[in-house]
Amino acid sequence: MRAYKELSENELLALKEDLNKQYEEAKAKGLKLDMSRGKPAPSQLDMEMDFLDVIDSKSLLKTENGTDCRNYGLLDGIPEAKKLMADMIGVSAENVIVCGNASLNIMYDTVARSMIFGVLGSTPWCKLDKVKFLCPVPGYDRHFAITEQFGIEMINIPMTKDGPDMDLVEKYVNEDPTVKGIWCVPKYSNPQGYTYSDETVKRFANLRPAAEDFRIFWDNAYVIHELYEDRSDELLEILAECTKAGNPDMVYEFCSTSKVTFPGAGISAVASSKANLDFMKKTMTIQTIGYDKINQLRHVRYFKNIDGMKEHMKKHAQVMRPKFEAVLRVLERELEGLGIGTWTEPKGGYFISFDAMEGCAKAIVEKCKEAGVVLTGAGATYPYKRDPKDSNIRLAPTFPSSEELAMATDLFVLCVKLVSVEKFLKK
Amino acid sequence: MRAYKELSENELLALKEDLNKQYEEAKAKGLKLDMSRGKPAPSQLDMEMDFLDVIDSKSLLKTENGTDCRNYGLLDGIPEAKKLMADMIGVSAENVIVCGNASLNIMYDTVARSMIFGVLGSTPWCKLDKVKFLCPVPGYDRHFAITEQFGIEMINIPMTKDGPDMDLVEKYVNEDPTVKGIWCVPKYSNPQGYTYSDETVKRFANLRPAAEDFRIFWDNAYVIHELYEDRSDELLEILAECTKAGNPDMVYEFCSTSKVTFPGAGISAVASSKANLDFMKKTMTIQTIGYDKINQLRHVRYFKNIDGMKEHMKKHAQVMRPKFEAVLRVLERELEGLGIGTWTEPKGGYFISFDAMEGCAKAIVEKCKEAGVVLTGAGATYPYKRDPKDSNIRLAPTFPSSEELAMATDLFVLCVKLVSVEKFLKK
Repeated sequence: MRAYKELSENELLALKEDLNKQYEEAKAKGLKLDMSRGKPAPSQLDMEMDFLDVIDSKSLLKTENGTDCRNYGLLDGIPEAKKLMADMIGVSAENVIVCGNASLNIMYDTVARSMIFGVLGSTPWCKLDKVKFLCPVPGYDRHFAITEQFGIEMINIPMTKDGPDMDLVEKYVNEDPTVKGIWCVPKYSNPQGYTYSDETVKRFANLRPAAEDFRIFWDNAYVIHELYEDRSDELLEILAECTKAGNPDMVYEFCSTSKVTFPGAGISAVASSKANLDFMKKTMTIQTIGYDKINQLRHVRYFKNIDGMKEHMKKHAQVMRPKFEAVLRVLERELEGLGIGTWTEPKGGYFISFDAMEGCAKAIVEKCKEAGVVLTGAGATYPYKRDPKDSNIRLAPTFPSSEELAMATDLFVLCVKLVSVEKFLKK
Repeated sequence: MRAYKELSENELLALKEDLNKQYEEAKAKGLKLDMSRGKPAPSQLDMEMDFLDVIDSKSLLKTENGTDCRNYGLLDGIPEAKKLMADMIGVSAENVIVCGNASLNIMYDTVARSMIFGVLGSTPWCKLDKVKFLCPVPGYDRHFAITEQFGIEMINIPMTKDGPDMDLVEKYVNEDPTVKGIWCVPKYSNPQGYTYSDETVKRFANLRPAAEDFRIFWDNAYVIHELYEDRSDELLEILAECTKAGNPDMVYEFCSTSKVTFPGAGISAVASSKANLDFMKKTMTIQTIGYDKINQLRHVRYFKNIDGMKEHMKKHAQVMRPKFEAVLRVLERELEGLGIGTWTEPKGGYFISFDAMEGCAKAIVEKCKEAGVVLTGAGATYPYKRDPKDSNIRLAPTFPSSEELAMATDLFVLCVKLVSVEKFLKK
């Protein structure tokens, strides 16, 4: 196939006419498809229904230290759940608090706590004139929504295949005392599926922040969410690296089982230094008497240990992998060599990131929507929903069935072509 | 029995010697008993283990509106859980958001939200020089801990059998714009077990707050927690009263199933006006993707409806009632007529409130502890843990077994006598 930029105006016009015809035909099908959010498919959830059988009326609901999971107590989680979640991210159980059903909630509360009470004795952020967060882009919309709601200024940091641009990160963090945090999805990043390189993690650990209350918000959402058994990314464990570098308190790490068992009915955890956890617990103990210990126990009984959990994730991969590959196949077949878009090929996580030509993302998403295919809103992967190049589109292939996915992706590439042709014609 | 104040010094000395001997004997038993917290007993929890059977791998986990409870979605709760929780407190389902496992968490977040974002467009409380809350006393220590942590000044309001002293409440609320809230446990109050009278509820609803962002924090924790089938307190429903009085936005009501199913593994809810709920949802939608819908569904399937829930509460009452009565019997038998203490006789809830002579509560709790019986800390029922009269002690009869309870209460009355005798001797 020839690149669009090499086509003559007449060729482009003919192409446009043909694409428009195809688009009208597609529209006539009255599709109703959703590729917008990183949700597991019902078929994935069907496979793990036995999770709901491991605890019943005949179960002994005592923890290994004798606590009755049916009653109040144990603010920071049952010991065996701490161990399980610690093993998930490769840290020690004593560095972990197990919380409720959503790691997003811990992240929000961690920012809120810093706003109201500061960080380990620092001035509460709400008392400061200016608080800034670095935001690797494209990134996760719900992270940006938290910092936006608290009025924290967000600064875009371009992502590379090795993680955020660390020259920029070091410059901001080490020189600007109003920079208080950075949002990271270090493994199979949302939406690109990139994993931070060892060098990136080490450079993070060796930051010399101008602000003593600077923290890395390390959202390890996809830590065991592999698509392939024979090739997966390895992420260096950051807590140990920070300690080695003399920055033991610099990172909060988050994880959950939202995409391991059931979204909304999983458990979440935060890992950090003892000093940070103790500070967190001072507010947690006022905020709640404790999280759902029965559900923590349900997770432990179901997986037994981290090996069981990783084994379980292979079942998810079996459903997800063909979907990712189906989307990638269509992108390759239809767009390769046209010079109108690039995309990532993740080995894990929940997304594929697509970059259209500058100024085309909104139009593509809009055109898809008109024909009944909902994508994540263009711009959503950037702070303030503003993609400066209007180029990035997040594709979430997991929720639709394979059949729906094929139809949705066919429509997507059609819209990419159509909007791109129009762009060339306007030049 | 003669009142202590009528005893001569010699009689008091002889009594003291006798009591001391009894106390040393009791101490020698090496008791290890806990009457400190309002926790259900294991025998109560044993009775409801079948709660864990209603959802298993064969269950259809769809809500009545077709939402898959196993996946993301439905921020404000599944419709049937909204209905159940609404019926629990006698409001409409559209006035309810169903949340996670702890109503305390909603209360904390509601105060935190007001601190950071204000109330329906008012100035955030953290920007104000002074924020005050009214605290009916004695009251619930975890309420006071929330307002204390946020640096909110707490003002004691004496409780009566009909609820808080409403003359004082009206004076503060209607005249002082820095008074932003009041903590209430309107039914079977913690710790006295008093229920607000209709007149009290109406006077609440008809407040004319000096502060537009004043809110009543109506913690209806014991709304269906009756001890008797044939005599229970009735509480007027406050949302409707507030609406009638032209104050539709003035109240947040909280409830949970923490003491209906399993503490820590229950569900909670907040009820309020549409305007308040919409405002809450603006932050909630950033804070979480949604609460545990499977556990919401588990509650609905177990109870079917509010009648089922109330029927279930009778089982709890059967275990709890004899314990309350055992404590009351000992108090009556041992202390009646001595003039050294008064106590409440609740028809529901989780506590009995005991008032010792002024200046005696701390010493009594300390003496009990020395002999192996842990009570709620003296002062805990007051803001800043300061009981100005050092008189109130909260008794929590539910957790120990009947046998333990008898021993604990015997020791308690012994300590009350001993400390009281010492007080008379010092006079």
